[in-house]
Amino acid sequence: MKQRQETTIPDIVVSRLPIYLRELTFMAQEGIAVTSSQELARRLRSGSAQIRKDLSYFGGFGKQGTGYQVEFLCQKLREILHLTRVWEIALVGAGDLGRALIHYGEFIEHGFRISLVFDNNPQKIGQRLGELTIMSTEVMKDEVRRQGIKIGILAVPASAAQKVAEELVEAGVGAILNYAPVTLSLPAGVRVQYVDPVIHLQRMTFYLK
Amino acid sequence: MKQRQETTIPDIVVSRLPIYLRELTFMAQEGIAVTSSQELARRLRSGSAQIRKDLSYFGGFGKQGTGYQVEFLCQKLREILHLTRVWEIALVGAGDLGRALIHYGEFIEHGFRISLVFDNNPQKIGQRLGELTIMSTEVMKDEVRRQGIKIGILAVPASAAQKVAEELVEAGVGAILNYAPVTLSLPAGVRVQYVDPVIHLQRMTFYLK
Repeated sequence: MKQRQETTIPDIVVSRLPIYLRELTFMAQEGIAVTSSQELARRLRSGSAQIRKDLSYFGGFGKQGTGYQVEFLCQKLREILHLTRVWEIALVGAGDLGRALIHYGEFIEHGFRISLVFDNNPQKIGQRLGELTIMSTEVMKDEVRRQGIKIGILAVPASAAQKVAEELVEAGVGAILNYAPVTLSLPAGVRVQYVDPVIHLQRMTFYLK
Repeated sequence: MKQRQETTIPDIVVSRLPIYLRELTFMAQEGIAVTSSQELARRLRSGSAQIRKDLSYFGGFGKQGTGYQVEFLCQKLREILHLTRVWEIALVGAGDLGRALIHYGEFIEHGFRISLVFDNNPQKIGQRLGELTIMSTEVMKDEVRRQGIKIGILAVPASAAQKVAEELVEAGVGAILNYAPVTLSLPAGVRVQYVDPVIHLQRMTFYLK
C-alpha cells in the first residue's frame, strides 16, 4: 500500500502516533520484539481496531496473524513523524517554567534540543541557563531566522504570547508549543499545541463530585 | 431545556468548555458584556456551529438574535465544570517541574490550590517549597485520604508514575494530571490528563518539512 498524502490524514490520527511510538519504545526497551494491536491497545487502554485503522493510513506495517515487529514499527513511526533528525527549538521565557524546560531530559532523548532561549527581562539577559545564554527578545527574530529554527516554545505570560508568537512565525517558525494560557491567532499552516494545566484540570473537575 | 445527564455529554464537548470559559473570562476583563458564537469562534479560531452545539448540551444560554451574556455564560460554565469552589491538589514530585508548578500563579486564580507536596528523596523531605513543606511519599496515601483530596498532579519520573498513581487512587483521588511520559493504567472512572511536551512536539513535526 502506498503512503497517502499527509494532507489526507486526519490530525486526530497524527495525534495518536507519538503515543504509539512512546509505548512501542518502552516495549522495545523491555525486550519485546513482536506485538499485536491487541497488546498495544491493552497497554494504552485504547481500542485495537483504532490502532489498526490509524496505522493503515501509512500502509499497516503488520502481517495478518504475525503482528507488528516492534523495532521496525518504531522506526517507521519516527520516519512518518520526521523524527530521524534533531529539531532545534527556540524557547521564549526564562522564568520557572523556562528553567524546568531547559532541564527537562526527555527533549534530547527524543530528538529535540532547545538551542536558543530568550527573555525580555534585562536582569536575565546575558545570564546562563543550563548550557545556554539568555538572549534578548529584541534579537529573537534575527537569531531564529539566522539559525533556521522551525519550532518555538512559549513560556511567557499570557499578555506577551500573541506578539511573541507572531514574531516567531515571521522568523520562519512553523510549530509552536504554547504554555501561555491564551489562544493564539496565527496564519493557517502554523501548528500550535497548547499546554495549560488549568484547562486540563477543569476538564476533569466536570467529572468530580 | 433541561440539563442533560453528565454521562450523555461527549468528553470532547467537555474538553472544549474550559477553553470557552478562558476566552469568555478574557472578554469579560476587556469589558465585553454581550457576545455571539461567531465572535467567540473568531477569537478561538474554531467554528460557531460547534460552539452553539456544545453549549446546547447544557441548555444553550443564548437567545436567538441577542447573543450570550458574557458574565452569565462564564458563571454557568463554572457551575457546569464544578469550579465554584476551591479544589485542593496533591503534587507528587518536587523537582524542577514540581517547583515550577508550585510557583504557577494561574492555579489559585482559577480555583485550584496545591496543598500537599510529596517526594521520595530524603534530602528534599522536610524542606520548604513555596508555602509548603515537602512530605515523604510514604505518608502520601494517609495524608491525601485524611484531607479528602480528589486531584493529584504527577511530576515524577516515568518509572515511578504508575505506582504513585495507584496509591493516589487508593487514597481517593479521582483525577490525575500526569506530567510523567507514560500511559497510566488505572480503574475505569479515574480521569487522567496527560501533559508531555515531547508528544505535543512530535505531533507537530509531522507537518514540518
